[in-house]
Amino acid sequence: MLTVNVELADRRYPIFIGENLLGNSELLLPFLDKRRVLIVTNDVVAPLYLEKVKSTLRSIDCEELVIADGEQHKNLDMAVKIYDKLLAGKYDRSSTLIALGGGVVGDITGFVAATYQRGINFIQIPTTLLAQVDSSVGGKTGVNHPQGKNMIGAFHQPQCVLIDTTVLNTLPEREVKAGLAEVVKYGLINVAGFFDWLEQHTDEILKLDPERISYVVKVCCEQKAAIVAKDEQEGGVRALLNFGHTFGHAIETAMGYGNWLHGEAVATGMVMAADLSMRMGCLDQSKAFRIKSTLAKFGMPVEPPATISAQEYIDLMSSDKKAKRGKIRFVVLNTIGEAVLKDDIDMELLKQTLEAQDRLCL
Amino acid sequence: MLTVNVELADRRYPIFIGENLLGNSELLLPFLDKRRVLIVTNDVVAPLYLEKVKSTLRSIDCEELVIADGEQHKNLDMAVKIYDKLLAGKYDRSSTLIALGGGVVGDITGFVAATYQRGINFIQIPTTLLAQVDSSVGGKTGVNHPQGKNMIGAFHQPQCVLIDTTVLNTLPEREVKAGLAEVVKYGLINVAGFFDWLEQHTDEILKLDPERISYVVKVCCEQKAAIVAKDEQEGGVRALLNFGHTFGHAIETAMGYGNWLHGEAVATGMVMAADLSMRMGCLDQSKAFRIKSTLAKFGMPVEPPATISAQEYIDLMSSDKKAKRGKIRFVVLNTIGEAVLKDDIDMELLKQTLEAQDRLCL
Repeated sequence: MLTVNVELADRRYPIFIGENLLGNSELLLPFLDKRRVLIVTNDVVAPLYLEKVKSTLRSIDCEELVIADGEQHKNLDMAVKIYDKLLAGKYDRSSTLIALGGGVVGDITGFVAATYQRGINFIQIPTTLLAQVDSSVGGKTGVNHPQGKNMIGAFHQPQCVLIDTTVLNTLPEREVKAGLAEVVKYGLINVAGFFDWLEQHTDEILKLDPERISYVVKVCCEQKAAIVAKDEQEGGVRALLNFGHTFGHAIETAMGYGNWLHGEAVATGMVMAADLSMRMGCLDQSKAFRIKSTLAKFGMPVEPPATISAQEYIDLMSSDKKAKRGKIRFVVLNTIGEAVLKDDIDMELLKQTLEAQDRLCL
Repeated sequence: MLTVNVELADRRYPIFIGENLLGNSELLLPFLDKRRVLIVTNDVVAPLYLEKVKSTLRSIDCEELVIADGEQHKNLDMAVKIYDKLLAGKYDRSSTLIALGGGVVGDITGFVAATYQRGINFIQIPTTLLAQVDSSVGGKTGVNHPQGKNMIGAFHQPQCVLIDTTVLNTLPEREVKAGLAEVVKYGLINVAGFFDWLEQHTDEILKLDPERISYVVKVCCEQKAAIVAKDEQEGGVRALLNFGHTFGHAIETAMGYGNWLHGEAVATGMVMAADLSMRMGCLDQSKAFRIKSTLAKFGMPVEPPATISAQEYIDLMSSDKKAKRGKIRFVVLNTIGEAVLKDDIDMELLKQTLEAQDRLCL
């Protein structure tokens, strides 16, 4: 087992990474001393892993709430269902929520933990690759609004993150691929050699070779932990983690939550961001091509949906959280492994990227 | 004008107190440099003070949202109306919300500021005495759930608090009296001489004598600021501010939000807490009597509603935020000016206080 620590201003928390950790009560119990626990999970994960986690926590006063799976349920109405359950069960401030599931379960459970009685503890047990390498670490929580992803949320750090890589064996292939989008992102924004390594090990990674997957998860968590330690509330360097997300969020919103997986939209968004970086003269065409072809090798969509117009992208992106005083902000690449935040994008170049649609100049 | 500073772990913010401050742009503008502003106010305050504030901020890009007045509207549905307005207007993370109104407007606007795009700036301009002496300072934000007050919320500190005591002249007498409940509370929990002073100046205070009112607001804000500086997120000493609130919240919830004003419920709750303190052998009967009679002199209700049964109180209080692992926690008085937190209350004594109803043994 590997442990990566996230250092915050006032405390630290561990990320445990390894095989068969769901059954390891020694990792979780120290965080749950005498606390009541509500496990929030979804109807896909519950039949697979809920009993295992409950058995691990059998010495604890523990209930569960099973919510519907899917990004389209990541909204305030679902948060209210969790508040209702907590209040009906008289859960108090010393209670702990456990999020057992993918990014949707983690984000919504974290948001409820951030806001129930002005904040209670929570623990992340991410069961998708995307959640393991990205969303479960760093304390971003939230729900969607019909007009934008994660528009309602809070920063609220978990007590610990338990990543059992064994659960990836039951993850649908499409979700494994979508999770790899965020993995590739780390290779693009700040770990120079990692992208090369990913290019060279595509097949083993797609086959979920345990050693390779553990390494992938560890590198991503270390990167995320280092960035979060520097910038817990996204005042600066943390914004680089949004590479590909400005385009990606627009795709998710325009296509309707749940139709494109977050990772799929981010993969396509990264291709668009690479295209824009290239048009701005920051990124070599050969490198932009490597990015697109590696994402394609991992089985991710790399062509934006033809149904979204340039104007629709611009409207959606101007209300993105990263927009500042009306200006859309983008993370662009200078090279593979080096990203910068730009808020003075030439609208003509942006339109070229948007209008290229499935004719991206790569 | 007086300034009281609230010292937080990572920053400080000022509370400005004085007459005719709404028209003073020099106080607000430094916090609003180039920011878009949405003023949230209610349909009672808007006709009185909205244009004045907008005129003070005329150099700023500023809109307003007028919500319905009353505690019964302090819920997630109303928060959603504010999110909708912010999203429709493409307000970004650099925007500022201004809460112009009483505690309901302040709490709900603060909660939206805490959670819109994971947190934006906000400013409090409290227009009721209750909000001026208590709820606008300290960063507690939240909305009610049908099963309990402030059950959904966050700690989110304002950038500044602007207290114009002149606005109290348009405040209904009932609300002035309700506001004085929290004032008396400070005299009871930790400022020994203040209660005596309040007893001696009841008439001038009720007549809103400007000098007396400024002094009252200043003392309360100083006390609150000192307690918040020690305990921003209510891990310890801050809980003493809840004196009378465990009973009071139960009354508010049982009677239906908006029927009893918060201050009225707190006044009666303080009488009940004094009664319990006396039954526990902590507080002299003569002092309990002074507390009840002073609250009565200020025109506050001091008899609990006869319609709430002891069991109903206990059910509501066990789901209060201050309850911990099933045990109801109470702030009790050792004497006037000295409060302590107790979580090992004898249920028999508690039942005596609850069953006394309007026959409280005072």
